[in-house]
Amino acid sequence: MDDGEPRWLNAEEREAWLTWIAATSLLDAALDRQMQRDAGMPMAYYQILVMLSENADRTLRMGVLAERTQSSHSRMSHAVARLEERGWVRRHTCDHDRRQTFATLTDEGFAVLAAAAPGHVATVRKYLFDRLTPEQVEQLTAITDRIRTGLTSEFTDPTEPARQLGLS
Amino acid sequence: MDDGEPRWLNAEEREAWLTWIAATSLLDAALDRQMQRDAGMPMAYYQILVMLSENADRTLRMGVLAERTQSSHSRMSHAVARLEERGWVRRHTCDHDRRQTFATLTDEGFAVLAAAAPGHVATVRKYLFDRLTPEQVEQLTAITDRIRTGLTSEFTDPTEPARQLGLS
Repeated sequence: MDDGEPRWLNAEEREAWLTWIAATSLLDAALDRQMQRDAGMPMAYYQILVMLSENADRTLRMGVLAERTQSSHSRMSHAVARLEERGWVRRHTCDHDRRQTFATLTDEGFAVLAAAAPGHVATVRKYLFDRLTPEQVEQLTAITDRIRTGLTSEFTDPTEPARQLGLS
Repeated sequence: MDDGEPRWLNAEEREAWLTWIAATSLLDAALDRQMQRDAGMPMAYYQILVMLSENADRTLRMGVLAERTQSSHSRMSHAVARLEERGWVRRHTCDHDRRQTFATLTDEGFAVLAAAAPGHVATVRKYLFDRLTPEQVEQLTAITDRIRTGLTSEFTDPTEPARQLGLS
C-alpha cells in the first residue's frame, strides 16, 4: 500500500463504488424502518432472534453471536439485555463452564420472530429480488461470494488445515 | 403484503441474500477497522469529511449531511460535534437564515482527509475491485443501480414533475 502513488479508482470503479454505498445504505435503512414500524424493533434485534432460532436448541454463546454480527461484545451484551427485558431471550451460564454466557430464544421470542418474518421477507423481495432478473441474482451471488471469501480468508491462517492434518 | 401466504425466498434467493449480508457487513467492518487503525476515526467520520470536501466551499447544511448518510439529525449533530472538537470541522449559521446550521471542513480537516484517503482506497481496492473482473464490476454497478433506484423512487412523488410543470 505504501510503495508509491496510490492507485485511485478509475471512472467505472468510482461509479460502482458510489452506487454500492448508496444501495447498501439505503437498503439497510429501509429494512430497519420497516422492522421498527411493523415489529417495534431494530434490524439488529431481528438478526439476533434469527441466529438463535437457527440452532437446534435455540441457543448460542454470546461470543459467537457477537462474532457473527460483526459486533463488539459490549454492544451485543447491551442488545441481548434489551431482548431479555422484553422476555424474548434468556441469558444463562452452563454448569460445566461458568465463564461462558449463553443466550436462548424463548417461546415468546420465537413467536415474535415468526410474526415479524413475513413483513421482512416481503421488504427484501420488494427492494432486492423483485428489482433483479434471475441472471442478475446469480451474478450478484457470485460477486458477493468473491468479496466475502476475500474478507474471511484474511482472518484465517492458510497453513491451519495442513497443520491440523499433521502436514506442517 | 398481507394478501395470503408470504412469498418466502427460494434456495437461490436465500443464498444470494445470506451472501449479500455477509459481504456487506464484513466489508463495512474491514473498512472501519482500517480507518480506525490508520487514521484514528470511524468510517462515519471519514464519510462526513468526504461529503464536505466535495462541495465548492467545503460546506453543507447539517440536514443535508444527515440525509445523505441515512443518519438521524441527533446522530449527525453528535458526530459533527466530535469532529469540531478535533478542529476538522466548524459549525456556523448563515446571516440570512439563522435557523440553518452549516458545517464547513477546515484546512486541518482537509489535510486529515487527504492523508487518510490512500489507505482507504487501497482497502476498497483490495477487498472489492481486486477480487472482481471488469465484467463483474459492470454487472455490480447495474445491479446496485437497480436497487438504489427502487429505494430512491419510493420517497419521491411520481406526479411531482408534472405538477411543477402545471400539467396536473
